[in-house]
Amino acid sequence: MSSVIRVTVWNEFRHEKNEGEEPSKVYPNGMHEVIAGQLRNQPGFEVRTAWLDQPEHGLTDEVLANTDVLTWWGHMAHHEVSDEIVNRVHARVLDGMGLIVLHSGHFSKIFQKLMGTTCNLRWREAAEKERLWVIDHSHPITAGLPEYFEIPHEEMYGERFDIPQPDELVFVSWFEGGEVFRSGACWHRGKGKIFYFRPGHESHPTYYQNEVIQVIANAVRWAAPMDTPTPFYGNAQPLEELGSSK
Amino acid sequence: MSSVIRVTVWNEFRHEKNEGEEPSKVYPNGMHEVIAGQLRNQPGFEVRTAWLDQPEHGLTDEVLANTDVLTWWGHMAHHEVSDEIVNRVHARVLDGMGLIVLHSGHFSKIFQKLMGTTCNLRWREAAEKERLWVIDHSHPITAGLPEYFEIPHEEMYGERFDIPQPDELVFVSWFEGGEVFRSGACWHRGKGKIFYFRPGHESHPTYYQNEVIQVIANAVRWAAPMDTPTPFYGNAQPLEELGSSK
Amino acid sequence: MSSVIRVTVWNEFRHEKNEGEEPSKVYPNGMHEVIAGQLRNQPGFEVRTAWLDQPEHGLTDEVLANTDVLTWWGHMAHHEVSDEIVNRVHARVLDGMGLIVLHSGHFSKIFQKLMGTTCNLRWREAAEKERLWVIDHSHPITAGLPEYFEIPHEEMYGERFDIPQPDELVFVSWFEGGEVFRSGACWHRGKGKIFYFRPGHESHPTYYQNEVIQVIANAVRWAAPMDTPTPFYGNAQPLEELGSSK
Amino acid sequence: MSSVIRVTVWNEFRHEKNEGEEPSKVYPNGMHEVIAGQLRNQPGFEVRTAWLDQPEHGLTDEVLANTDVLTWWGHMAHHEVSDEIVNRVHARVLDGMGLIVLHSGHFSKIFQKLMGTTCNLRWREAAEKERLWVIDHSHPITAGLPEYFEIPHEEMYGERFDIPQPDELVFVSWFEGGEVFRSGACWHRGKGKIFYFRPGHESHPTYYQNEVIQVIANAVRWAAPMDTPTPFYGNAQPLEELGSSK
Repeated sequence: MSSVIRVTVWNEFRHEKNEGEEPSKVYPNGMHEVIAGQLRNQPGFEVRTAWLDQPEHGLTDEVLANTDVLTWWGHMAHHEVSDEIVNRVHARVLDGMGLIVLHSGHFSKIFQKLMGTTCNLRWREAAEKERLWVIDHSHPITAGLPEYFEIPHEEMYGERFDIPQPDELVFVSWFEGGEVFRSGACWHRGKGKIFYFRPGHESHPTYYQNEVIQVIANAVRWAAPMDTPTPFYGNAQPLEELGSSK
Repeated sequence: MSSVIRVTVWNEFRHEKNEGEEPSKVYPNGMHEVIAGQLRNQPGFEVRTAWLDQPEHGLTDEVLANTDVLTWWGHMAHHEVSDEIVNRVHARVLDGMGLIVLHSGHFSKIFQKLMGTTCNLRWREAAEKERLWVIDHSHPITAGLPEYFEIPHEEMYGERFDIPQPDELVFVSWFEGGEVFRSGACWHRGKGKIFYFRPGHESHPTYYQNEVIQVIANAVRWAAPMDTPTPFYGNAQPLEELGSSK
Repeated sequence: MSSVIRVTVWNEFRHEKNEGEEPSKVYPNGMHEVIAGQLRNQPGFEVRTAWLDQPEHGLTDEVLANTDVLTWWGHMAHHEVSDEIVNRVHARVLDGMGLIVLHSGHFSKIFQKLMGTTCNLRWREAAEKERLWVIDHSHPITAGLPEYFEIPHEEMYGERFDIPQPDELVFVSWFEGGEVFRSGACWHRGKGKIFYFRPGHESHPTYYQNEVIQVIANAVRWAAPMDTPTPFYGNAQPLEELGSSK
Repeated sequence: MSSVIRVTVWNEFRHEKNEGEEPSKVYPNGMHEVIAGQLRNQPGFEVRTAWLDQPEHGLTDEVLANTDVLTWWGHMAHHEVSDEIVNRVHARVLDGMGLIVLHSGHFSKIFQKLMGTTCNLRWREAAEKERLWVIDHSHPITAGLPEYFEIPHEEMYGERFDIPQPDELVFVSWFEGGEVFRSGACWHRGKGKIFYFRPGHESHPTYYQNEVIQVIANAVRWAAPMDTPTPFYGNAQPLEELGSSK
């Protein structure tokens, strides 16, 4: 593992451009700038940003080849992400790039493709209280956190969240209105690691909150590729002679 | 699998004997009678009861040999259960008997021994509302249930619940006071299946509620032994000649 | 759960049509006839067949709506399966239909879509010995089986098998040439259950072997849908009043 | 996480004292010296040793309090390990200390207590070839390894291995005589992480082999405690007022 982790913070970057609307006030330069800005304070992180309206959505072969961990926020324009780029990101994840999917990114093409399910859920915009409970106290993504933390105003996401059973379930959220949600969950796919993290509605200042950034930074470290072996696939002819070794 | 499932409903049966106290009013003949009575209405169930103060706690070799699924409720007298009987039950679970651990049974010797952890948790007696959400919609334990159901007044159990990650997570509870809990969880151990189900405080009429009994009945069916193979353990001498089969 | 399980045995049915070639000798009427014929001997199974060259590949809305469990064998013509039918099967699996993917079906569009990975592997055609070991002795798919069983001549499939970690790992295969393989594995997706089962090269009489059919029949029973709840997805307005229940 | 990882290499250290026997020739100063010697070459490791015949088996409160990761090899004298020390180690694991259980340590009291099962298996001493296949190519324990590696002469351990389904299955072994084995497996218990690693029969020079030491060193890094939260257990009175946050 290189000592530096190269992070690309990807954002759809559309909500924030609607002048006068809430997201443009909370994140005037885009969510990605707020997230990236705080990750740059982490020791050993090298952070760049990319967004939908750039050529190739900012995710050229060269950018992906030089990305250790990609974070993904999208919402209103999931369908505008080209299948070619989705396939490119998918291949890089299976080849070892970490992927952190944030909030409404649950409905992104890349997350659906990796999960194999609809990734659907129930939701409600009522600016209600969310309390995130740590479920796996051995998990590196919980480092430096209290046993639970609260976000004062968030969109609600509730079960059933249509995902494969997580390989590691890290957080479960409690919502004021009576719902629960698996809000921090990990999967391994190929050589890659994937973390879904629920918080981050575009109208709330969630990505300014310390615990939220701490989780994302921990997840970056957890998802960073290591020097693990690359499997051989295909025809393994001929049959070896494996007679007694004695 | 035999067409009849033989169930033994085990109860500590102490709280209910304290005259004038709440449990004696809610369950005058003991919780086991209420649970067993309802399970007897299920097609194909043959139900008996057993309790702590019987000889060998009612769990003789003969009883266990003729039990397909054992349900367990205990609380104030966990330490009075003899280690010999715990070991006997443990061996039967590994040999295929299903085990359903109810509510405060989380601190029973048998559950701790099977889990390998403390099985500790946070709790509060405030007769608050519990809402149980189905998390795994493919699981037979959810058959016939709505997407969630509520228990109007229950003791709260909250995370962190010190258990191994469940093999299957079926329910997560929401509590009025801000907590969440993995309230229905499955594990496989040896040839046996184990289900932990949270509800059932001794002062509330929880075991009269239809959904609660439905879950227990479903769990009995899920945990019932099938004709699965018994592994060989020990010395597998000699080294076989496994030369080319052609 | 209905007392009858309606099974559709799907086959690509191409190899067997190449006259003079091995598959046409081993399975003169197609693999599906051999598999279906034996499943028809199981109590409570209602079995039909379907194949690639039928209209809509034999998988009309009506057929799928009346299928509880679908088995899938394909190999040389995966790319000829239309995306529309794949999406239709995918939706039915998430809605509860069981899916059993056989052998080279690992590279089918439907399996790849459900897994989210390449499902690639290493392989060798050397008619070598395969020994399948039961790993989970509590699993209903192992009912009636010995601790391990052998297939005298099979194509080798070896790790790394590029799949998500199985929810339940039932069999691991040993191959004469030095490889191992997770040859029986279960996943839950939505309301549906999926079982991948490795054996079944088109040139070997694998589907005439009793243990192989026993596994498929067990898997059909395990994967059959039950009356589990259908989740609500979408906007769950308004915020409920969930004040103290006392 | 401290930048230094403090490792305690524990050994039963009995076989090696039988003069003239094979283990005394292969490991004249004890296995622990060979393992510890090589771990001392790893950057950032601080390594000490401990063994059965020391007071308190060398595992005083003070030693354990200053151990980040404990490795455990035992065989002929499992029953001589005092229950008090086993409970002490158990509590430390749940509190975050990593534990690496080696080879015949599968039958140690501490491993059985953490697993909740017998941890039994089939075995054969025939100095046969073992080939360990990487199954999870995203796992840090595989860093720097090839896709598989071989040990020329080892004792065979075969399935069924009576353990809970691993949280992460890292290696599966192939044996010349026809068996397979889950030879590298991870579990999370409380705040602690546990890795079982199969190789290491006392009569073979297995712990001199580079890949074997690489795995153990990787496992030490993976199992080292991080600054994860410590849960609160017990009475969480009173019921909080969690009225609308708006």
